[in-house]
Amino acid sequence: MDKFEVKVFIRLRPSVLDPAGEAIKSASNKLGVQGIKSLRIGKMIEVKIEGNQEVDVQEKIDLLCDRLFANTVIEDYEYTIKKL
Amino acid sequence: MDKFEVKVFIRLRPSVLDPAGEAIKSASNKLGVQGIKSLRIGKMIEVKIEGNQEVDVQEKIDLLCDRLFANTVIEDYEYTIKKL
Repeated sequence: MDKFEVKVFIRLRPSVLDPAGEAIKSASNKLGVQGIKSLRIGKMIEVKIEGNQEVDVQEKIDLLCDRLFANTVIEDYEYTIKKL
Repeated sequence: MDKFEVKVFIRLRPSVLDPAGEAIKSASNKLGVQGIKSLRIGKMIEVKIEGNQEVDVQEKIDLLCDRLFANTVIEDYEYTIKKL
C-alpha cells in the first residue's frame, strides 16, 4: 500500500453569489486595502489516504467529492494527488 | 497598475483539533471509502487585486491575512501570487 496526499479545492460556481466573500471584501476596504477586484471564499480539504495505485485513490476521491465534500449543484471541485 | 491573482490557503494549526474534519472522515468510512489516515478542512480565499508591484500586493495580503482572513492563534496561512 502506498500513501498519497490529496488536496481538494472546492469553490462556489461562478454564477453563485458569495455574501461572505463580499463582506470580507468590504472589510478589507475598511482596513485600508484598496484595489481588490474580486474575493471568493472556498474550501480546501487535505486528505492522507492509502491505496494501491493513484488511479485507485482517484476513484475514491471522485466519489467523496461528489457525495460528501462538495455540493455539486452550487460548487465545483478540483484536486491534486501526490504520492508520499 | 498590474492585476494579480492571489490564492490564500488557511489551515488549522496541527495542534488544533478539527471536529468537522473528523466527522467527514467517519462519514467517508460509512460511504465505503477505506484507508483515510487523516482529513483536515481548511479555507481557500481567492483574490483578484490591483497593485504596482508584486511586493506591494504581498504587503497588502500579509496585512489581510493577519488581521482579517486567518485567526493566527489557531490557524496558519500561506499564499501564492500570480501576475495576470
